[in-house]
Amino acid sequence: MNTISPRPVDAVIAAAREFLGERLSTAQAVREQHGRGEDQTPPTLPDAVAFAETTEEVSRLLALCHHHGVPVTPFGAGTSLEGHVNPVRQGITLDLSRMTAIREVNPEDMDCLIEPGVTRHQLNDFLRDQGLFFPVDPGSHCTIGGMCATRASGTNAVRYGTIRENVLGLEVVLADGRVIETGSRARKAANGYDLTRLMIGSEGTLGVITRIRLRLHGIPEAMSAAVCQFPDLKSAVETVIATSQSGIPVARIELLDADMMEACVRFSKLEGYKPVTTLFLEFHGSHAAVAEQAAAVEAIAADYGGEGFAWATDAEERNRLWKARHDAYWAGLALKPGWRALTTDVCVPISRLAEALVGAKEEAEALGHTTCIVGHVGDGNFHQMVLFDPDDPEGLERAWEMDRRIVARGLALGGTCSGEHGVGLGKREFLEQEHGAEALAVMRGIKNSLDPKGILNPGKMFRN
Amino acid sequence: MNTISPRPVDAVIAAAREFLGERLSTAQAVREQHGRGEDQTPPTLPDAVAFAETTEEVSRLLALCHHHGVPVTPFGAGTSLEGHVNPVRQGITLDLSRMTAIREVNPEDMDCLIEPGVTRHQLNDFLRDQGLFFPVDPGSHCTIGGMCATRASGTNAVRYGTIRENVLGLEVVLADGRVIETGSRARKAANGYDLTRLMIGSEGTLGVITRIRLRLHGIPEAMSAAVCQFPDLKSAVETVIATSQSGIPVARIELLDADMMEACVRFSKLEGYKPVTTLFLEFHGSHAAVAEQAAAVEAIAADYGGEGFAWATDAEERNRLWKARHDAYWAGLALKPGWRALTTDVCVPISRLAEALVGAKEEAEALGHTTCIVGHVGDGNFHQMVLFDPDDPEGLERAWEMDRRIVARGLALGGTCSGEHGVGLGKREFLEQEHGAEALAVMRGIKNSLDPKGILNPGKMFRN
Repeated sequence: MNTISPRPVDAVIAAAREFLGERLSTAQAVREQHGRGEDQTPPTLPDAVAFAETTEEVSRLLALCHHHGVPVTPFGAGTSLEGHVNPVRQGITLDLSRMTAIREVNPEDMDCLIEPGVTRHQLNDFLRDQGLFFPVDPGSHCTIGGMCATRASGTNAVRYGTIRENVLGLEVVLADGRVIETGSRARKAANGYDLTRLMIGSEGTLGVITRIRLRLHGIPEAMSAAVCQFPDLKSAVETVIATSQSGIPVARIELLDADMMEACVRFSKLEGYKPVTTLFLEFHGSHAAVAEQAAAVEAIAADYGGEGFAWATDAEERNRLWKARHDAYWAGLALKPGWRALTTDVCVPISRLAEALVGAKEEAEALGHTTCIVGHVGDGNFHQMVLFDPDDPEGLERAWEMDRRIVARGLALGGTCSGEHGVGLGKREFLEQEHGAEALAVMRGIKNSLDPKGILNPGKMFRN
Repeated sequence: MNTISPRPVDAVIAAAREFLGERLSTAQAVREQHGRGEDQTPPTLPDAVAFAETTEEVSRLLALCHHHGVPVTPFGAGTSLEGHVNPVRQGITLDLSRMTAIREVNPEDMDCLIEPGVTRHQLNDFLRDQGLFFPVDPGSHCTIGGMCATRASGTNAVRYGTIRENVLGLEVVLADGRVIETGSRARKAANGYDLTRLMIGSEGTLGVITRIRLRLHGIPEAMSAAVCQFPDLKSAVETVIATSQSGIPVARIELLDADMMEACVRFSKLEGYKPVTTLFLEFHGSHAAVAEQAAAVEAIAADYGGEGFAWATDAEERNRLWKARHDAYWAGLALKPGWRALTTDVCVPISRLAEALVGAKEEAEALGHTTCIVGHVGDGNFHQMVLFDPDDPEGLERAWEMDRRIVARGLALGGTCSGEHGVGLGKREFLEQEHGAEALAVMRGIKNSLDPKGILNPGKMFRN
């Protein structure tokens, strides 16, 4: 006889079809939709895509994959910028985007219990008439499960913290299908190892998140947005540092460099603004508090040469400004029609931020790159878009090289290789450099303890 | 020949004396000082106490203990309330209280790097003239290393977070003497497993913390304290919930039940206050913001029957009120001269807080206990002092039984067995009940991965 022994993944597919039916797909189009996120990594196709709808299905699927040693790659909205969702060793992609139930909202406790496929837009639409909101805002249409997995943050982490500070607990399916609950409904706890925080940022390598208990916040009585323009990067950063030291609780403080501002003025028709380094700010609080905060920042900005400080409590004008900020990526791309961009993600101590920004910008110019910068500068985090011509055979590699230089500079300044996008495939080489071999060995030990067969999102975070 | 083979700990003592000299003590008095914390657990004496002064000494000592399989119990100021520092399997107690260097303060980044023996009082005295402060305030004269190890919080976690939210990174010596650094100087990061948060709250069972990088905060322009008295527990809790929902950023909101308030009025001579349920509050911000916040809370309190809302920006009056609050433990003890107290530590969802408090109080009264309550109620955390007569042979056991009932009620209401004091010896039986066997197995797996010989603070957190 000359039979070909079946692949382990085929055994998983056959068994999973028993309980998932048509929600276990091997269709080429579906597999292609799950080949990568929104990054520039080369796509890989999974053998099949499973659309789970319940914790029990996730548990059964993982137990099967564990038994057969088949890789599992969790997938939310596919907005990763670092290759998290690429099934680099094929196997099963576990799509959680249909797990969208909002199971509880507790207004008195200001918490809620949701499934991982809920997006932040869906949640905030649902919460609005209860006077509550979920503040973490990475900009993209990501799922909150994906935000937990990658330790996401965004524009208003400076006031409300990152996802890490806004999760009370999780339900997690372990590699072998066992289900645990981490945390509790209590606002704080000193009750054993912090498995919640261990799972947050573990990028699908330690377990699959199936429920999330989030902290919520009251919608502030008043919000205002402000814009202020500066002669150079340094003066804008000095303004941020002084604002931070003074304790003014700004809700958002975003920097756009001159190139990015020029792109936004053009793309979003921001009449009246100059193509110079610019801060976008937002203030939350009572009407009086918002006015007081804006006046205080205006005075600080003036000390550093900030001009044209303009603030608006009008929702329409505020939304116009923030839409322009959120469209910055598209505005940047429009600088070079047909080109694409790599988006770097470095976070440094704020005292080194001006040095990081000016250095990265000068280096990029010297190497002939078109780049533009947006930054969540209250946290020292910035993204430098490096544009490249996809028709130039060396374009992408040159952009990667520039990315590596920006990260190396950030690390040398005491920063991290990723402020909020995560490690995935793109930052693996920097992880050891940042933490050292011993700390990485501890991480690997934890990985081996929780996923001894290495089936959960293999190839991510660690280089082997 | 009839020799007695030397004990492993003797080999450690002999070798450690080589580099610690007289800082490795086997004196009875020193060992007795390290037999337990400030709790009611039975003391155990270590074989020796090592007073380390450098990371290298900690590393060498742990490598020795690891080699010989000798238990190591880290010790800071010895203020544990849950038996964390009792060397229940003897061996070496590692006293870190001499590692008191403040190595860096970075005003622009509002961070600092300290050694673990620094107390919060020392740090705040050092920071004051730079306009900065470290907010986490558990009340006791604890070391910040101990606060990290036990995930401490205290009165103003409601505004500034617990120690967890205020640590950027750690230096940790692993069980075998290897040294790792966790986190980075960046304010946020998505850079691999969160080893910082894993170590925080691990109670000395995963590694010994030798350096701590803390987030600092600007001393607010203005602070005011307020007191408001209520007809019952429920109306005070309703006031807390409404305040929280309204987004008023109170810095502290502490509840004292009628018995505790009576004790404080007597002990701290708080003339003019009634022995009824009372909230102590503190507001931080600009002068205008503090006034606005106080007025807003006063209006909410009035809706729930709060009377005599009095607030003071005067530092002397503010300090007098907070000293009374911090002396509440002694005031409670003074209710029964010669008696001692167990202090429970439960945290529940705030919507269940009134139920938890009223239930625990009624149960205690029915069982004939004298108890009084203080609570960090903005977080749903409360401590019920259960007084007992040390001359009554059953007194302590009856108090423990009451403690267990209070915890069981807290768990049934969706809370945690420890809001801030930790697990140690006292809460081990509840840890499995709270998290379930599978989550506890994950914790044990992590413990085994980092400390395969089980030398680090054995007998704590887990029951075997």
